[in-house]
Amino acid sequence: MDIATRVYNHRWKLDPIVRSLIDTDFYKLLMCQSVFTNHRDTRVTFSLINRATDVPLAKLIDEGELREQLDHIRKLRLSRGESTFLRGNTFYGKRQMFRPDFMEWFEGFQLPPYHLERVGDQYELTFEGPWPEAMLWEIPALAVLMELRSRAVLGQMKRFELQVLYARAMTRVWEKIKALQGLDGLRIADFGTRRRHSFLWQDWCVQAMMEGLGGCFIGTSNCLIAMRREVEAIGTNAHELPMVYAALARDDAELAQAPYRVLADWQAEHDGNLRIILPDTYGTQGFLDRAPDWLAEWTGIRIDSGAPEAGAEAAIRWWKDHGQDPREKLVIFSDGLDVERIQSLHRAFFGRVKVSFGWGTLLTNDFRGLAEGDGLAPFSLVCKAICADGRPTVKLSDNPNKAMGPDAEILRYKRVFDVGTQQAQTVQV
Amino acid sequence: MDIATRVYNHRWKLDPIVRSLIDTDFYKLLMCQSVFTNHRDTRVTFSLINRATDVPLAKLIDEGELREQLDHIRKLRLSRGESTFLRGNTFYGKRQMFRPDFMEWFEGFQLPPYHLERVGDQYELTFEGPWPEAMLWEIPALAVLMELRSRAVLGQMKRFELQVLYARAMTRVWEKIKALQGLDGLRIADFGTRRRHSFLWQDWCVQAMMEGLGGCFIGTSNCLIAMRREVEAIGTNAHELPMVYAALARDDAELAQAPYRVLADWQAEHDGNLRIILPDTYGTQGFLDRAPDWLAEWTGIRIDSGAPEAGAEAAIRWWKDHGQDPREKLVIFSDGLDVERIQSLHRAFFGRVKVSFGWGTLLTNDFRGLAEGDGLAPFSLVCKAICADGRPTVKLSDNPNKAMGPDAEILRYKRVFDVGTQQAQTVQV
Repeated sequence: MDIATRVYNHRWKLDPIVRSLIDTDFYKLLMCQSVFTNHRDTRVTFSLINRATDVPLAKLIDEGELREQLDHIRKLRLSRGESTFLRGNTFYGKRQMFRPDFMEWFEGFQLPPYHLERVGDQYELTFEGPWPEAMLWEIPALAVLMELRSRAVLGQMKRFELQVLYARAMTRVWEKIKALQGLDGLRIADFGTRRRHSFLWQDWCVQAMMEGLGGCFIGTSNCLIAMRREVEAIGTNAHELPMVYAALARDDAELAQAPYRVLADWQAEHDGNLRIILPDTYGTQGFLDRAPDWLAEWTGIRIDSGAPEAGAEAAIRWWKDHGQDPREKLVIFSDGLDVERIQSLHRAFFGRVKVSFGWGTLLTNDFRGLAEGDGLAPFSLVCKAICADGRPTVKLSDNPNKAMGPDAEILRYKRVFDVGTQQAQTVQV
Repeated sequence: MDIATRVYNHRWKLDPIVRSLIDTDFYKLLMCQSVFTNHRDTRVTFSLINRATDVPLAKLIDEGELREQLDHIRKLRLSRGESTFLRGNTFYGKRQMFRPDFMEWFEGFQLPPYHLERVGDQYELTFEGPWPEAMLWEIPALAVLMELRSRAVLGQMKRFELQVLYARAMTRVWEKIKALQGLDGLRIADFGTRRRHSFLWQDWCVQAMMEGLGGCFIGTSNCLIAMRREVEAIGTNAHELPMVYAALARDDAELAQAPYRVLADWQAEHDGNLRIILPDTYGTQGFLDRAPDWLAEWTGIRIDSGAPEAGAEAAIRWWKDHGQDPREKLVIFSDGLDVERIQSLHRAFFGRVKVSFGWGTLLTNDFRGLAEGDGLAPFSLVCKAICADGRPTVKLSDNPNKAMGPDAEILRYKRVFDVGTQQAQTVQV
């Protein structure tokens, strides 16, 4: 028994859920640098949205504990080693991915204040500030809410019950990995930071993927784990870019162009595997139909909502129409993945395009059925930019159940982006 | 990271499988004291018998490693704390179960030399010496062989593969415990020392039983674990007593009486719950038919071979024939138990008699199907007294597949004990 460690641990006032500013998705940092360059002064509000209204977060999570965790995160600063890693590491084959001016800013960075209020059985949790600051709350805020809700359940369990809980969860992850071992040419990454069970659990899953899948495991979206486990940090860009650009548009014409403006800015900064189109913010088909020709030369596309097969087929048709060879293009699937879907998508598209997978919540938080009342099952919690410089943001996506924004604005966006009837899909996680 | 611990561990020349002289079954110590009193100078040879001829122990286990483990066990001495426990603890409600003269002898005790030789793909491993000395090799020898064979398989596995292996094994044990939680009035003990997966694993299983079954878990046969976990040490007597007494009989008349002589000696020493008949050494039915009347007053019976229902029904009839109320009698089932059998036996006999279970190998070593080639599945390995003062021992039991001894002697014993046709049963563990 290591007495010193035990005494030290016992002295803890808090078992922190987020222990580092780079315990976040890599693409947040990439986007942050881009926003830092192009929209440093835009003021954006991010807000927690619990799509699972049957999960009464304010009943499950103590407000004091939530504040402690959030306050702790506001005390975090980039450490010297983290800064060295970001400055010195090669990301996507590129040295100095993060520019000196951005790194200097990030080294002095502190997360802005949060606003927390209980409304009924839910929490209203918002983050307001300059876009590059407020945006960095998204991932840690989600991770804190998810984990505090798990801890409330775990706190009721006895010692061996807990051991067996993790034994079962490990077995489940390992069986998933085993099932994927048979897939020839698989390329898969961990995208499970935001709704993970916990940091240590995500770290375990990544290591299990490393051992079980070898070179087929291409990396993790989690920057801290990528650093510690010496694997690739994975990620490019997300919906918040087109959502904020669109909110800032002064008229319908500018609105229609906003998604492409995002990518023009991105292209000025990145090449190669970072040139990945995320087409679904206002409907994939319309996005592709109206896309400028130069976009067809980008490396690939990420399918993040709607029926994934339909999205990929639309991309393949679009590439062919533009004289591109789909076999040279990358399709990244990242929506609601689990083993069966990964297997069927791989079978359907491997060889026709380059395929890769960003496996999220059902990798790092599949505790479904493992606790009484299913209190550890993941649920659909997001943290989104809801307003930019005082104007509301809108997301449509390829699944109407994922749409967000004021009703009138949703109608306007549907008109501008010519979005017809959409197929609704259950949002699981 | 506790550097000192790591350095200390790294310095180990040996990871010992048996670390204490009381890491053995409690009944060996009870019997040892009895033998120490009544047959101190009888010379007995114990021998390893691998009933699973398809498990080539000498190919799987390195002879040098086996010798290291056995040599280590010969270096063990009773520690001061262990001695204090044996002298001071209450066993079966009795203080000073172990007499001062026995304890003084045990405090100076060292296991006698062993004889080890490779014969084909098996090891010939024997222990010769005064009965109270040689007999204490049985359990540690079995535990060493079982665990070295497991270690050979475990040594090939990678880190997360190993973690998941134990995760699966834990889940399996826990599911068994959960299945037993529904049994009203269950009384169950761990009898799994000899063919356990490892000491730490047995210790885990015991603790899981404590948490999962509460008061229905009545203790463990392992004396060291009983001490450390502060639960009851469980066990009474075994086949070696009638086997050696029978081998020492000078004629057929003495042979026929030998099993009852054992119990007369036992009765002089023990009362209450320690008066448990083990009737099957030379056939249960004949043993009961010819038993002296005073034996019907004993507390209970242990069913360790044959069809367990038949054995228990025979005991119930016998008690009724002798004017005893079976509901006051204890029936202990201890042969090849697993959850289904425990459930069905409990259902069949609970209320008709007092029932309890000694759950062995399939509690502490159920790794069936968890490794490549099923290399961790338990197998039928025993260590038996094969000869006493130069005369061979014989065991018949209620299952001809468990019979042992020279053919001519088996025939003689069958005649003397009037054993007819027996039903053969597969010996699993």
